[in-house]
Amino acid sequence: MSPSLVVNGDLVPVKSGAVTGRVASVYSEVQTSRIDHALLLPSVLRNPFKIVEGPRSSAAGNPDEIAKLFPYVFGQPSAMLVPNDTDTLKQDQKLKIGVVLSGGQAPGGHNVISGIFDYMQDRTKGSILYGFRGGPAGIMKCKYIELTPDYIYPYRNQGGFDMICSGRDKIETPEQFKQAEETAKKLDLDGLVVIGGDDSNTNACLLAENFRSKNLKTRVIGCPKTIDGDLKCKEVPASFGFDTACRIYAEMIGNVMIDARSTGKYYHFVRLMGRAASHITLECALQTHPNVTIIGEEVAAKKQTLKNVTDYIVDVICKRAEIGFNYGVILIPEGLIDFIPEVQQLIAELNEILAHDVVDEGGVWKKKLTSQSLQLFNFLPEAIQEQLMLERDPHGNVQVAKIETEKMLIQMAETELEKRKQDGAYKGQFKGQSHFFGYEGRCGLPTNFDASYCYALGYAAGALLHDRKTGLISSVGNLGAPVDQWTVGGTALTSLMDVERRHGKFKPVIKKAMVELDGAPFKTFASLRDEWALKNHYISPGPIQFIGATATAVNHTLLLELAAQS
Amino acid sequence: MSPSLVVNGDLVPVKSGAVTGRVASVYSEVQTSRIDHALLLPSVLRNPFKIVEGPRSSAAGNPDEIAKLFPYVFGQPSAMLVPNDTDTLKQDQKLKIGVVLSGGQAPGGHNVISGIFDYMQDRTKGSILYGFRGGPAGIMKCKYIELTPDYIYPYRNQGGFDMICSGRDKIETPEQFKQAEETAKKLDLDGLVVIGGDDSNTNACLLAENFRSKNLKTRVIGCPKTIDGDLKCKEVPASFGFDTACRIYAEMIGNVMIDARSTGKYYHFVRLMGRAASHITLECALQTHPNVTIIGEEVAAKKQTLKNVTDYIVDVICKRAEIGFNYGVILIPEGLIDFIPEVQQLIAELNEILAHDVVDEGGVWKKKLTSQSLQLFNFLPEAIQEQLMLERDPHGNVQVAKIETEKMLIQMAETELEKRKQDGAYKGQFKGQSHFFGYEGRCGLPTNFDASYCYALGYAAGALLHDRKTGLISSVGNLGAPVDQWTVGGTALTSLMDVERRHGKFKPVIKKAMVELDGAPFKTFASLRDEWALKNHYISPGPIQFIGATATAVNHTLLLELAAQS
Repeated sequence: MSPSLVVNGDLVPVKSGAVTGRVASVYSEVQTSRIDHALLLPSVLRNPFKIVEGPRSSAAGNPDEIAKLFPYVFGQPSAMLVPNDTDTLKQDQKLKIGVVLSGGQAPGGHNVISGIFDYMQDRTKGSILYGFRGGPAGIMKCKYIELTPDYIYPYRNQGGFDMICSGRDKIETPEQFKQAEETAKKLDLDGLVVIGGDDSNTNACLLAENFRSKNLKTRVIGCPKTIDGDLKCKEVPASFGFDTACRIYAEMIGNVMIDARSTGKYYHFVRLMGRAASHITLECALQTHPNVTIIGEEVAAKKQTLKNVTDYIVDVICKRAEIGFNYGVILIPEGLIDFIPEVQQLIAELNEILAHDVVDEGGVWKKKLTSQSLQLFNFLPEAIQEQLMLERDPHGNVQVAKIETEKMLIQMAETELEKRKQDGAYKGQFKGQSHFFGYEGRCGLPTNFDASYCYALGYAAGALLHDRKTGLISSVGNLGAPVDQWTVGGTALTSLMDVERRHGKFKPVIKKAMVELDGAPFKTFASLRDEWALKNHYISPGPIQFIGATATAVNHTLLLELAAQS
Repeated sequence: MSPSLVVNGDLVPVKSGAVTGRVASVYSEVQTSRIDHALLLPSVLRNPFKIVEGPRSSAAGNPDEIAKLFPYVFGQPSAMLVPNDTDTLKQDQKLKIGVVLSGGQAPGGHNVISGIFDYMQDRTKGSILYGFRGGPAGIMKCKYIELTPDYIYPYRNQGGFDMICSGRDKIETPEQFKQAEETAKKLDLDGLVVIGGDDSNTNACLLAENFRSKNLKTRVIGCPKTIDGDLKCKEVPASFGFDTACRIYAEMIGNVMIDARSTGKYYHFVRLMGRAASHITLECALQTHPNVTIIGEEVAAKKQTLKNVTDYIVDVICKRAEIGFNYGVILIPEGLIDFIPEVQQLIAELNEILAHDVVDEGGVWKKKLTSQSLQLFNFLPEAIQEQLMLERDPHGNVQVAKIETEKMLIQMAETELEKRKQDGAYKGQFKGQSHFFGYEGRCGLPTNFDASYCYALGYAAGALLHDRKTGLISSVGNLGAPVDQWTVGGTALTSLMDVERRHGKFKPVIKKAMVELDGAPFKTFASLRDEWALKNHYISPGPIQFIGATATAVNHTLLLELAAQS
């Protein structure tokens, strides 16, 4: 039997002696054109370099506790690649490196792997790159493939994570750390690159610490991945995938805006992916100028209720009706409900009641709710009430994720507008259309920005491992400049960390970067939103272009943040 | 007060003396880059031409009845523009022409208008083009604007219909025809271009007939518009907008496919716009190779039940589970339910019962259903049962359009899979994710194909009116060749018509072009679908490109149909 490879159970044919995961012969023209898209590396990576170190680092909070949790890797200085007359790293070394994708998909993941691979080909000839399959579980179970030029080729500049696939398992228990050690030993790994979000990078640091404490030679480098854009700091100005995902959502929003203006009779409520932070919603707003944008962090900061949010939307709808507009576009972050304290309270009470009490048809059970929760429950549309009562996860909890917030808000706006109509305060027509943009954006073809950024992140990770660094996150900076001028280095993962107390113990965490209400992106948005509400300054970004003058655009969030720093 | 313009109630600023509907200063880079995209005209339109006529035409069916309904315009020959040493049409004529957009948006509408305008500027200098606002109602109410170069400029190659907006009113009653006559007289119109679908083009022909019978000088030319792709015939090989809309949906489907393969745990059920015909679903299938594609016309031809459709889907899911795939992508046409006779029957019975009987909680009312309908009703998921019982339109009828077919099929698949699991016939995991792609595709930036096709359709309409033709539909052919070689002419609208008997009277109709089960696109799909079901030959078309080698792609449906004809 000829060799073959299983990708998510998918038996894949073997071509010209090489195991090929994807078959480029069923590629679209655009996919094909992207494979051979030449990626420019930052100049420092194209020439001889040395690695210089900065001062000793601290932590984002509670440095003493972080130091206790990471006795070996805490306090490491950041590393920076700088041009040098000759290369200081030995070029004849043969490395064995593993790479793993962790968590949800983000456009560009394949390019991080290509970057590591190309670094090894260029600078440590004869090295081997192993891809752990299906996320961290692949490390624990030692499920891997050896990546070859032929295998990697069709994934270059392509979306998705299917080259080695991802997973959501965590390496947490002592047994799991032991399994990881065994894999590292078995494969004789010099290094491991963990491509993931905040949790996965925290995990990468714990692995680095653990390997060092056990005197293993395996070093660990993280890479910042998440479309949600909530893993970033000064040294790591962006997580990859955010740029592409926002451009894809913004294309759709722009199209819907032109449709709204052409038809003149629909309010489009668009829910956008991003459960923890509202960066995606904010960026899409900056790209498209919708009439209403709800930012979860603002709702939380202002302690707004669901009624407050509804009233804000309805106020805009009423004002627009007065000037003759019975249409519009409204953006809502997926995680909105999680930002509203009263909703959390209601859900906690419902979980308690449903676990211990009989829910009678007559509604006597409602007397168990606090008066505030009862009021909120009665305010909710019937369909949402039912959803809250019926759908439970395996632990018996209400499944907040399944609540279609955009439909809920349409129904609540309808009810409120009906009331205002009866009071004579509203004379318009209201028809809501709901949308959810999520899965469409996680696996698109990466923009030129994400393609180059990921490639540099991977290439840098290769250099850091070559220099035997560990517990750092690959850091590519100066992103507002042309690729050529990007800076390259690594930042101590512990410097991004704080501790959280869970079950009486301190746990290290990389804090999610939320939308900052005094940050440049939000302030820019806030200064313009009232104008966007009433005037229709819709912008339709159109489809992502890969060549031509429009192919180099970068997202507003990044540019505004960079401008504010400089 | 400075002059201003109201676009769907939108007060739009005035720039440099000209009334400007859109403000190009809030355009995205891609929108801006498209404005000045130079459109090549077919060579016959760039040089001197004469118009030659073919033989007398007939009708698509019942020619005697059509002849009676259209005594003046029936039987007209087709017109064809051919190169000539000199122009045969007088170049010093000044024409007054009106244009109207009718029905739902389709990418390219603005270019049809630009094409008419540019013809008049190029060949009948000093002419005036009026845009009727808000669809056919604009004709009846004589609501119009005079289109100027400055006004048209920002709409060139842009999506949407907001230059003059559209509407769904029809000119039907004698009073309405009278209003149209008055407008034609008041504006002293030499011609009128009706941009619309099958109904609107039927209406255009009735207008042409009426104007001729009243000895008005106003001639009427139609243009084929609809993303649904169901207005076409040999002489009119495509309706505009189909190409762009399918490319936008296929981009999203392709992204979701890569996501499905990367995650390995979701079945994505994607409902696609297209109520009457399944062309969009078929084209998207040809572009992306999904695991399951339901084509309404096939369901109808095979007289399939909802259970048959569910079983087909579930069979594929079970077979895939056996070879290790617990994920996939399934395409469903929006109009699926309309193709299933038993569903129509159930809905008719429910309408009757709800209008005349008491619906008791105990369910005694169900005894009024025929046994077949009762069986189907019980087979439906509870949420759909409720939707059928609760949501009614103003006439008291069940709102079929509101049924989310993709969610219904997910629930039915879940139930069936659970049953098979208990029988030991299925051991996989099933998680459904639902999508509806519709509004995102109607107003996107037109592909180069749609941009050029629309421009040629409009330019041709100008030429036909210049030659005093009436009752023709603008026809641009040889679309598989480069634009330069496209053929240009007009086809008698009556030749596309048949009659339908309604309320005892014959009514002329342009029959919707349905998916033909013995046509090349369906046969190509049918020959490949079993392979696509089990192997994952997913293709991800990626975002529409406007420049470069991939910018000239044309949809499969058109190319396959053209190849079959030649």
